[in-house]
Amino acid sequence: DREYDGGGNLIICRLSGKRLVTISDFKGKSYVSIREHYKKDDKELPSSKGISLNHEQWTVLKNNIPAIENAISRLDSR
Amino acid sequence: DREYDGGGNLIICRLSGKRLVTISDFKGKSYVSIREHYKKDDKELPSSKGISLNHEQWTVLKNNIPAIENAISRLDSR
Repeated sequence: DREYDGGGNLIICRLSGKRLVTISDFKGKSYVSIREHYKKDDKELPSSKGISLNHEQWTVLKNNIPAIENAISRLDSR
Repeated sequence: DREYDGGGNLIICRLSGKRLVTISDFKGKSYVSIREHYKKDDKELPSSKGISLNHEQWTVLKNNIPAIENAISRLDSR
């Protein structure tokens, strides 16, 4: 029941109609992509709009979630 | 001691030399940006390579971290 995009990347979730979070595997290394997709022949293909993070970059992002949450809270409470 | 990029966005962390996670504030709404920056006149300016997530999209991404971690583990254990 796993779902894949038109590029063969595992779809984790959908952030909006076009924006997908996917896991791709390139030369044996995994990447987390946050990327807009477009429809072609009923397939969802990755566009150039977005970013793919390697494992190390993903880990840094993950570890900074509390800092991100704090910053958002400070902005929202003004 | 907060650090800002050349576009006035709060820098949360650095994923690589060029890739920054920033919080921006546009028309009273906060966005989480994961984006490459380039240097100009000693300033780090946001490039078009990357993606900016609104609060709702950021929340969906955050809630899917366990699913992302599971998928990476499955790939890495092959």
